[in-house]
Amino acid sequence: MSLPRSSSKSACFPWDLCVLLFLVRFSASQGSALNCHKTCICASNIVSCSRMNLSAAPTALPPYTAVLDLSFNEIARLRAEWTPVKMPKLHSLLLSHNGLHFLSSEAFVHVTNLRYLDLSSNGLRQLDEFIFEPLARLEVLLLYHNHISQIDRSAFAGLNSLQKLYLSQNQVSRFPLELVKDKNRLEKLSLLDVSSNRVKVLPVQELQELPAWMKNGIYFHGNPLLCDCALYSLLAHWYIRRLNSAFDFKDDYTCVLPGTEKRTVDAFELNVHLNCSTFKEEDEEAYLDQKLILSCDTKHRDMTKTWVLPGNVALSPDSNRSAVLLQDGKLQISPVRAEDSGVYTCFAVSDAFNETLYVVVKVHNFTLSGMGDTLNTAYTTLVGCLASVVLVLIYLYLTPCRCFCCPGRGKGKNPHEDSIHSSMLSATPTHEDLASKAELNRHVAFIDPKDLQSQNGKFNPSGEEEQGKGPRKKSVAESISSVFSDTPIVV
Amino acid sequence: MSLPRSSSKSACFPWDLCVLLFLVRFSASQGSALNCHKTCICASNIVSCSRMNLSAAPTALPPYTAVLDLSFNEIARLRAEWTPVKMPKLHSLLLSHNGLHFLSSEAFVHVTNLRYLDLSSNGLRQLDEFIFEPLARLEVLLLYHNHISQIDRSAFAGLNSLQKLYLSQNQVSRFPLELVKDKNRLEKLSLLDVSSNRVKVLPVQELQELPAWMKNGIYFHGNPLLCDCALYSLLAHWYIRRLNSAFDFKDDYTCVLPGTEKRTVDAFELNVHLNCSTFKEEDEEAYLDQKLILSCDTKHRDMTKTWVLPGNVALSPDSNRSAVLLQDGKLQISPVRAEDSGVYTCFAVSDAFNETLYVVVKVHNFTLSGMGDTLNTAYTTLVGCLASVVLVLIYLYLTPCRCFCCPGRGKGKNPHEDSIHSSMLSATPTHEDLASKAELNRHVAFIDPKDLQSQNGKFNPSGEEEQGKGPRKKSVAESISSVFSDTPIVV
Repeated sequence: MSLPRSSSKSACFPWDLCVLLFLVRFSASQGSALNCHKTCICASNIVSCSRMNLSAAPTALPPYTAVLDLSFNEIARLRAEWTPVKMPKLHSLLLSHNGLHFLSSEAFVHVTNLRYLDLSSNGLRQLDEFIFEPLARLEVLLLYHNHISQIDRSAFAGLNSLQKLYLSQNQVSRFPLELVKDKNRLEKLSLLDVSSNRVKVLPVQELQELPAWMKNGIYFHGNPLLCDCALYSLLAHWYIRRLNSAFDFKDDYTCVLPGTEKRTVDAFELNVHLNCSTFKEEDEEAYLDQKLILSCDTKHRDMTKTWVLPGNVALSPDSNRSAVLLQDGKLQISPVRAEDSGVYTCFAVSDAFNETLYVVVKVHNFTLSGMGDTLNTAYTTLVGCLASVVLVLIYLYLTPCRCFCCPGRGKGKNPHEDSIHSSMLSATPTHEDLASKAELNRHVAFIDPKDLQSQNGKFNPSGEEEQGKGPRKKSVAESISSVFSDTPIVV
Repeated sequence: MSLPRSSSKSACFPWDLCVLLFLVRFSASQGSALNCHKTCICASNIVSCSRMNLSAAPTALPPYTAVLDLSFNEIARLRAEWTPVKMPKLHSLLLSHNGLHFLSSEAFVHVTNLRYLDLSSNGLRQLDEFIFEPLARLEVLLLYHNHISQIDRSAFAGLNSLQKLYLSQNQVSRFPLELVKDKNRLEKLSLLDVSSNRVKVLPVQELQELPAWMKNGIYFHGNPLLCDCALYSLLAHWYIRRLNSAFDFKDDYTCVLPGTEKRTVDAFELNVHLNCSTFKEEDEEAYLDQKLILSCDTKHRDMTKTWVLPGNVALSPDSNRSAVLLQDGKLQISPVRAEDSGVYTCFAVSDAFNETLYVVVKVHNFTLSGMGDTLNTAYTTLVGCLASVVLVLIYLYLTPCRCFCCPGRGKGKNPHEDSIHSSMLSATPTHEDLASKAELNRHVAFIDPKDLQSQNGKFNPSGEEEQGKGPRKKSVAESISSVFSDTPIVV
């Protein structure tokens, strides 16, 4: 509790003076009532009491106050009772430059609609668990230029609307990964500034996996990071993507070379110091018949995304391309075909920003691990063949006429079997697709004989061990020939 | 230009000292280069240089700066070249408490993406035309606590995104109506604070016509307003609607009684001082067959609105009520029927606020100025009668049998005439609707005999002077009886 300078006397006689002194002390801890003429400037819903030597927030604040500026005062402790009544309309609370070193765990229970909280340039040393929990609508939290060294893992729990968190110029030694990753992460956080702290080790892998719009706002320059090639790779990637965090502060990313006596070098030159391989943005690789999903990994979130396919073909629902725009703005190509190679362009627009992203897709001319599909194909063909065999047996043993050499029946038999086969095959669209696609006779020259061999191997899942089983082997062979019978295979 | 205190000497020898002094002066007007360690605190995209005795904004500001805090300095003039390069990311510029008294007409040409500009607590005296024109994205402009007495009518032109404008505690003597009315108004402005200025006369009528969401944010308390009943009526209305501007500052609305030597009284008690009639919210009145549009005049804009009809009936497209929800949230009732009387409830919701509005509709049981309809009815009845007469004449003179006592023909005549009448009437759906709805027998007990009398008067627009015109009078009377023939009128 900060006391007014005039009340520094401790011994007091007579008693009425003591009572008076107590009242003065009490009012100092409670703050004096708002005075819109002397201590504060009141402009409708704004109450500005900055640089007024206040040791506590004024009391009797009007309930309609939307902005309360208490910056540049001497409010060292923010107690639970700093505002004894609810202030439902308060959306901005400014408490910077106050020497604030104590935050009550109930400091914000009456200001639950805060959207902007400035606690920068104070003397805070730690952030306790759930300290900001009532602030479910808070969007911006300024905590830079304090002495914060301890942050409880649940300190920021409940800040479900937080978009910007400034922790710069403190003494934080652990990167608060829980804010951007895992189930308790702050879903709307797009700026996390932990620059100029004491972080030595970054969770590089986890950071690299985040979407670009998050990485764009994760600032960690000015920390005594330990140099390694993973850090270099991360920074180089972010710089190539022109992410703000790396691009704007390129000169401020330094790190300490391992094994040296705190020798600090430019992190962007680590490929020289540590022989890290030069970073190069990799293409998207895909294999025939695969499902490929291209992400439009923009620097800003909530953008409207449109894609242009290779050859400057606009993506439209009636185009016969296999590319489909998904709801989250990603592009799905399924099945991938050889002609899907090329540069895909994503145009992302929002009210404030436009962004264009290029994704280079390289399609390998063979299937990679079509295990599931192949097995399905094998099994359905097998079932079809078994059904054929059963039908043949029924035909042979259950029909009234058992004359095998009857020509009339022999002629009737083939169309019957054919129709069964065709109906079975029509129920397996993959075959038809394959056949019809193959009929287009495009790119068939690329099909490798080795691929075909492996294809046969895949169709017969149990391999050569099944060769002893005569009928089954034959039916499998039949099914393959029926599937590929119309396909002009050019080796 | 504010000079550094050390450079106040005017005579200078030798020349090198003069050159040095010139450089010092020049750098003072230009501001020194940004120093993130001494004069400013830099936290990623925030640059805070408050209370650093700066006489000019620092130069060489990084282009990624989003927030620039220069409050509590000594920047007396904001020149065009305060930032010589574009700062496309700067969205908040804080210049309060600077003694600022000059704004260059080009001060903001390089910061066109500003959304928040704080020029409060300075020494500004006038706002020139188009001074803020480059700030098309500005949302909040703080100009309170200056000495502004002259505001050019085009001073705020171009602020197309402005939502909040604080002009409190200045010396403004004219209410800037052009900001909220007419074609050049600021379309998004929802808060205009001209409290504690020198405004004597308000444009009461124009303010009263504004939508509630604008009136909700127009603060004009603390002005030396001249008392009159129009002012009382306006304030009483705003207070009953619980509009923030009147409700939150009820005790601050005073006015000067005319004819007295600046005798100031509470504006909410003017009904006592000036014998103003007590304000009462009026019901919506409507007349039969009229088109009535009910406005859901909410205190906040951009709310989603739903209506509940009298008797707690939800408005649904398949209800047979004549009420339709319009695109702007208004409710259209067409044609108005007697049973449309009652309390209409509008539920308005948005992310932050919910609001419920009640509109009391009183339907008079007669048409108001149904000139066209009445005449149409009269004419159609007249035409029907003439046709009947013609048919009778045809029957009488053109049919072969002229025997008047023939019972068979006499029977055939009446159904024929009836069918013509019924077909004529069926061509005027209003009548049928009225008749069928009247059959529901709701609210009929409320029909006043006086209303009925006036109804007759209204239906005959030329009144008693037309009594000499036999046929028309008769036809009008017939039309009335045809309309009300099925209605059980309970007097």
